[in-house]
Amino acid sequence: MGDPKPFDLNALFGHVDKNKDSFIQRLAEAVSIPSVSSSKEHRNQVIFMVKWMANLLRESGFSAELFELGDETFPDGSKAVLPPAILGHLGKDPKKKTLLIYGHLDVQPASKEDGWDTEPFKLVEKDGRLFGRGSSDDKGPVLGWLHAIQAYQALHIDLPVNIKCVFEGMEESGSKGLEELLIKKKDFLDDVDYVCISDNYWLGTSKPCVTYGLRGCCYFFIEVQCAAKDLHSGLYGGSVHEAMSDLVYLLNSLVSVNGRIAIPGIMDDVEPLCNNEQHVYSNIEFDIDDYRQMIGCKKLIHEDKVKTLMSRWRYPSLSIHGIEGAFHDPGSKTVIPRKVIGKFSIRIVPDQKPEHIAKQTVEYLDAQWKARNSPNTYKAYMVDGGNHWKAPLDNFNVKAAAKATKNVYNVEPDYTREGGSIPITLLFQELTGKSVILLPMGAADDGAHSQNEKIDVRNYIEGTKVFCSYLHEIAQEGK
Amino acid sequence: MGDPKPFDLNALFGHVDKNKDSFIQRLAEAVSIPSVSSSKEHRNQVIFMVKWMANLLRESGFSAELFELGDETFPDGSKAVLPPAILGHLGKDPKKKTLLIYGHLDVQPASKEDGWDTEPFKLVEKDGRLFGRGSSDDKGPVLGWLHAIQAYQALHIDLPVNIKCVFEGMEESGSKGLEELLIKKKDFLDDVDYVCISDNYWLGTSKPCVTYGLRGCCYFFIEVQCAAKDLHSGLYGGSVHEAMSDLVYLLNSLVSVNGRIAIPGIMDDVEPLCNNEQHVYSNIEFDIDDYRQMIGCKKLIHEDKVKTLMSRWRYPSLSIHGIEGAFHDPGSKTVIPRKVIGKFSIRIVPDQKPEHIAKQTVEYLDAQWKARNSPNTYKAYMVDGGNHWKAPLDNFNVKAAAKATKNVYNVEPDYTREGGSIPITLLFQELTGKSVILLPMGAADDGAHSQNEKIDVRNYIEGTKVFCSYLHEIAQEGK
Repeated sequence: MGDPKPFDLNALFGHVDKNKDSFIQRLAEAVSIPSVSSSKEHRNQVIFMVKWMANLLRESGFSAELFELGDETFPDGSKAVLPPAILGHLGKDPKKKTLLIYGHLDVQPASKEDGWDTEPFKLVEKDGRLFGRGSSDDKGPVLGWLHAIQAYQALHIDLPVNIKCVFEGMEESGSKGLEELLIKKKDFLDDVDYVCISDNYWLGTSKPCVTYGLRGCCYFFIEVQCAAKDLHSGLYGGSVHEAMSDLVYLLNSLVSVNGRIAIPGIMDDVEPLCNNEQHVYSNIEFDIDDYRQMIGCKKLIHEDKVKTLMSRWRYPSLSIHGIEGAFHDPGSKTVIPRKVIGKFSIRIVPDQKPEHIAKQTVEYLDAQWKARNSPNTYKAYMVDGGNHWKAPLDNFNVKAAAKATKNVYNVEPDYTREGGSIPITLLFQELTGKSVILLPMGAADDGAHSQNEKIDVRNYIEGTKVFCSYLHEIAQEGK
Repeated sequence: MGDPKPFDLNALFGHVDKNKDSFIQRLAEAVSIPSVSSSKEHRNQVIFMVKWMANLLRESGFSAELFELGDETFPDGSKAVLPPAILGHLGKDPKKKTLLIYGHLDVQPASKEDGWDTEPFKLVEKDGRLFGRGSSDDKGPVLGWLHAIQAYQALHIDLPVNIKCVFEGMEESGSKGLEELLIKKKDFLDDVDYVCISDNYWLGTSKPCVTYGLRGCCYFFIEVQCAAKDLHSGLYGGSVHEAMSDLVYLLNSLVSVNGRIAIPGIMDDVEPLCNNEQHVYSNIEFDIDDYRQMIGCKKLIHEDKVKTLMSRWRYPSLSIHGIEGAFHDPGSKTVIPRKVIGKFSIRIVPDQKPEHIAKQTVEYLDAQWKARNSPNTYKAYMVDGGNHWKAPLDNFNVKAAAKATKNVYNVEPDYTREGGSIPITLLFQELTGKSVILLPMGAADDGAHSQNEKIDVRNYIEGTKVFCSYLHEIAQEGK
């Protein structure tokens, strides 16, 4: 081994550039594992993915332990074992600060029939882009951390911090079991000084950012049942109260064409605008026309930068995702579905509370149902309630992330909030009592949760350099 | 061969009883072919099923010719060849009447995940019931005709009529291509004297019926698109007009909780009640409590026999079947679907016209859409418009069917109409100018288009005897 070499940012960057192909190859391996956490059928693949990652960590000197998280019970009553979580650490030097990194190894569902141009679980490089489910959310960033650490090791540069990591396999399905584990293993978190999470995106496609806030997500099911079995609409239509028309009535009562949520009192706990808040938003680089074109919609709800950013970050929104149990294939089927489950979620913001949102929402739906006066069976409930998170802007972790970003991209990053939810962020802040920061690797057009998810080669490689630099900058507090 | 034996109904019935097991075995073979006509993926299986049936007909002496019906274009622009139709005949004796029988060899979609207790494409006998997709709709009845004819042949009893048959593979998907074929092959129909179709059900589970009317079916799609790709609801929720909330708004505008269709003028062309019509309905054996229990619903729209029968037979109804493009799996997914297609249908009755219903419905939806004031892309259209059918009650075909039924079941059958649609019924009446009758084999609880479709062994075997008897009775006009 020999003596450690002095810190050399350019050498680290050079190492990352030189190993580009092998880093992409490793991402291809990760993407080829269909670790979809929402379905029972893929559970073994998620477990395989977690073990694959634990082995990689161990090969780089980590101690990486797998912790079982118990069973998951599905709405149909069936059960499946949860994928284990990895708690790892590398280095225990009491003279160094300890950084905790978090990432997830599971992905959203994906199939070619959903409209992917390529096989979702095969990484395909095209025009500087790496297409594949999980490439950006979140396998690319997780491997980015590993490769950044490996760069220090390869060049014999002493790691500036002790590293701890928490990698899980249930993030896309509510991080089931992880909170209980972290509470139980609180001593694992005791010596953590900073937390950094890379599981979100730039605001646009060219300028990097550091993220200090996230919305929470409250997910609801509405179940309506009208019959013991599906019915032929010719034979029974006209004589039964149909579950689908009841459900459509309830779903239609939730939100206006312009996204106004109809649930009474839902806005009561939303943090009021403070004096300079407008100004913070107007400083951010964000082109409303680019954004609209990226979405491919004709018209946004607000054709105004500040209002659009606020509607995504600091105000709640409600989305209807779909219906389980109804006819959903191409073509025609003359069925009266016996039981249908409508699914929607509300993104929540400071100072809304999931429990209160659940109460307001279910009470409202109960009242709508009563007014409907249908004899069918009905139930509305929250299946998952993740809270929002917001960090103070003036702490060292934010500054280190910003400096690291500037060292790579030569630009002062935007300071942003995000509309998506990573409930674990809040949990880390609560359990460690230390500052948490989100340092995104991917760009706004990566299509997380969508068809043709990708990460640009640039973001994957330069993002790895940002991590290299951040590992150094975060060690500089008080120096 | 020897001389033909004299007609002997008891001998025919005895032959059917004796061959029960082999008739069930043949139905098991038919059910094992997943001839689902609505999906491209099963098209080859439908074609296989048609050829399988043509071979059986030929083995029984039929001349059975397959006619190609061209291509089908799917909503996504892709194409598939349509399954051919069988035009067959057996006997050309100018001294005999000619009976045309019609049936279909395709089935509705089915899969174990939909909630079947057994594999849908494997015939399973349990407690006198034969479970399997197509057992009752319509493979059982089609084989019933063949077995009735084979009974005459086995006993060397001269067939009382010449037989023609039309068997198709697209009935569950709008009988695509068949009308054009029958118009082109009009000479095939020229010498037909009677038409009999067995593709519907008894009103209840114990008393047989003869059916003289059917509702039509107009099937509609509503397409709404909000974005070029599916969006993450956390990242985009609050800034885009979501297609799902637009679609739910449109679907909710169609029908009230009690099944009243909201489209203005939709009831204008419904045949007014005539003086004695109430009386016709009140004579029918129909238990409203049994009906409700069979459905498994808490409360019917009308808790009154006559009103319920009328709502199923002589009034239109509207059913919402489902949504294509939205999230439909179990579990949670935080997606804003980019494009959703709502599917609903209207059952129509005399004297409504499909073209006029299409105009009224699309104009209404267009107006609703305009009022919605959404910037998204929208289109509503009728994909299929099948007309209703009603035969006069006092013709010989009805009487022959009633007598044949009584010969087997020892009871005067009910004279019923039906809520389901067999558009081909009307077409046969128009093209032949002769009387058409529906002579059901299955019972009301067979679950056509539903999970756990079945036909009772009793109905399958006694129904075959009804066909044996009907072949004799229909030859007696003027004798």
